Amino acid sequence: MLRVVRIGLIGLGTVGQAVVQLARSFAATTFQIERVVVRDHQKVRPDGLSVTSDPRDVLEDPAIDIVVEAAGGREPARQWILEALANGKSVVTANKEVMAYHGPELLAASRTHRSYLGYEAAIGGGIPIVDSLRYHFTSASVHQVYGVLNGTTNYLLCAMARGRSLQHALVEAQRLGFAEADPTADIQGLDTGRKLVLLIHLAFGIWTDPDRLTVQGLEEWPSSLLSRLDSEGLGLRLLAVARRGNDDRITAQVRPTVVPKASPLMGLQGAQNGVGIITAAGHFWMQGPGAGGLPTATSIWADIRRARDIDMTEAAPPDELRAEPDPVLMPVWSIAVDPDRKINDANRSDEGVIAFPRFDPPA
Amino acid sequence: MLRVVRIGLIGLGTVGQAVVQLARSFAATTFQIERVVVRDHQKVRPDGLSVTSDPRDVLEDPAIDIVVEAAGGREPARQWILEALANGKSVVTANKEVMAYHGPELLAASRTHRSYLGYEAAIGGGIPIVDSLRYHFTSASVHQVYGVLNGTTNYLLCAMARGRSLQHALVEAQRLGFAEADPTADIQGLDTGRKLVLLIHLAFGIWTDPDRLTVQGLEEWPSSLLSRLDSEGLGLRLLAVARRGNDDRITAQVRPTVVPKASPLMGLQGAQNGVGIITAAGHFWMQGPGAGGLPTATSIWADIRRARDIDMTEAAPPDELRAEPDPVLMPVWSIAVDPDRKINDANRSDEGVIAFPRFDPPA
Repeated sequence: MLRVVRIGLIGLGTVGQAVVQLARSFAATTFQIERVVVRDHQKVRPDGLSVTSDPRDVLEDPAIDIVVEAAGGREPARQWILEALANGKSVVTANKEVMAYHGPELLAASRTHRSYLGYEAAIGGGIPIVDSLRYHFTSASVHQVYGVLNGTTNYLLCAMARGRSLQHALVEAQRLGFAEADPTADIQGLDTGRKLVLLIHLAFGIWTDPDRLTVQGLEEWPSSLLSRLDSEGLGLRLLAVARRGNDDRITAQVRPTVVPKASPLMGLQGAQNGVGIITAAGHFWMQGPGAGGLPTATSIWADIRRARDIDMTEAAPPDELRAEPDPVLMPVWSIAVDPDRKINDANRSDEGVIAFPRFDPPA
Repeated sequence: MLRVVRIGLIGLGTVGQAVVQLARSFAATTFQIERVVVRDHQKVRPDGLSVTSDPRDVLEDPAIDIVVEAAGGREPARQWILEALANGKSVVTANKEVMAYHGPELLAASRTHRSYLGYEAAIGGGIPIVDSLRYHFTSASVHQVYGVLNGTTNYLLCAMARGRSLQHALVEAQRLGFAEADPTADIQGLDTGRKLVLLIHLAFGIWTDPDRLTVQGLEEWPSSLLSRLDSEGLGLRLLAVARRGNDDRITAQVRPTVVPKASPLMGLQGAQNGVGIITAAGHFWMQGPGAGGLPTATSIWADIRRARDIDMTEAAPPDELRAEPDPVLMPVWSIAVDPDRKINDANRSDEGVIAFPRFDPPA
């Protein structure tokens, strides 16, 4: 007999509701959602959910094994995660912001308390990229990770390629639920940058400050520019790239990039995400729905299963699974952000096309 | 301090040598290849490897934690795996044949002895499809898995699309190391069928007999047929598909299939593999090198790390990770192999084109 694993869920928005929905469809016997923390505990809830508005009812309850943080933002999420880990609970989070800004502190707490910390849902929605980098792709040395990591901007770029203005496409995306009420972090590339910080850590074992990463986002480019790209068999993607150079320095960037239509990057339609990983063993590619309730909840449930199964007493802590912890073997890398090619009036030509770098993923 | 995990390796062919190579590049401090079982222990070996020709030196040595089976074939691999599991060792295998034919017995032994059994390397070379199905994609109900699972036949189809005869392409593939000396199991689709049996188990929780699965392989089609497909924006792939119908029955097939060139399936060049997974949370796609020493060794090392970290005392056994073990929740599925459209002289038209089914993966 397997023991029942008891889950405390913080947040019942789109993601939290999908976590509950998946629990009902498959997990009733060995997993139980014990309590849900909501802002307003008077609102009507799905049957059978025990709700509270006090996070301590989850963080301090010894009956709860795993805390799922689906609230978002830096604070108080950081405090909640630290407290849950200190209380010996596993933590599963979908929160890329808190992981990108506080990942070193949070993963150190996971090591100290031997409590599992999973953040599969923080990058690429339903794509299993975090665990694949932790356990799999890093078995052979990673040379490069690249991809489209933000569903909102990819949706907007697809609409702009069909002739929509950025402003018009944004209104449409908000109406359809593909863009937040405040889409600034998405459109400016900040969200993509946070996810790239997490990928750099997973692939290369180093942390960089999200605010040190130069990112460029979408602009209201003239539609003639996008149609000219199209007529030349090209398209535009908001591309994140991190690459290890011959000198073991890591260069990283987030910016609008011209991509041949034949590339899998251009095959990403709407809110899809895609990640390429180039290792000594070859070139891998994964794509799928990069946002939304069910895809994100799929990743959360994968982490819940891992939290149950990974033995933190014996195992290497998650932070170090990707590489051996011997510091002698670990080269000292530094981040050198490529600052050139910033699109501005000075280097934008009349056609505007040459301002974009071009990316051809190796075959 | 992490304890050193001691590995016994059976087989030092292409895959076994790549396992040793990756160990030297990253794993020296916490993993150690303690002993290697080879056919002829008099041959010259890489420095520092302790070799033997007696498998019992690995299977019965209490100092060894994990046995890596990289020998292949059904027997004696089956006996070795059973003995290692019974002796409390974790087992990691790249052997799709022994898993497809004896998976139920081997995974039952893994459960009984609480010993981890990993077979990530048995499907898709370096693509992390096994763990992704065990832990991740099955969190939301899987409707369909499909893909190209055999690198040799994909290499041959790419050469045939460039005008080569099957016979000519095969000689070339053997010279370049992309085809075995005896390519029968690849060309007839049997190897793809074995991998599909494993995918069906991982995705839908049922085992089927590889010999009950009707498979079709490559034939010496007239080159006019392939060039006509090409001129119509189509191509040919040896496609494996397993799909859950509305009645919860699983249909499965392996056969040459016409695919639009815009599909990611046609983007698979040479020996690449690709797998699509359609779940309630959306459509996912993973591709990468599907064979060869380093990709396969990448998957083996991922399983070695998992074998160290997964707690089999507490955890659900690998066989049941993908779904809850409650039999009441598990519908009784049956395999109904689609027997029609067998390509033979009776239903082959003059052009030969209509004999192929067409597959359009959903967007």
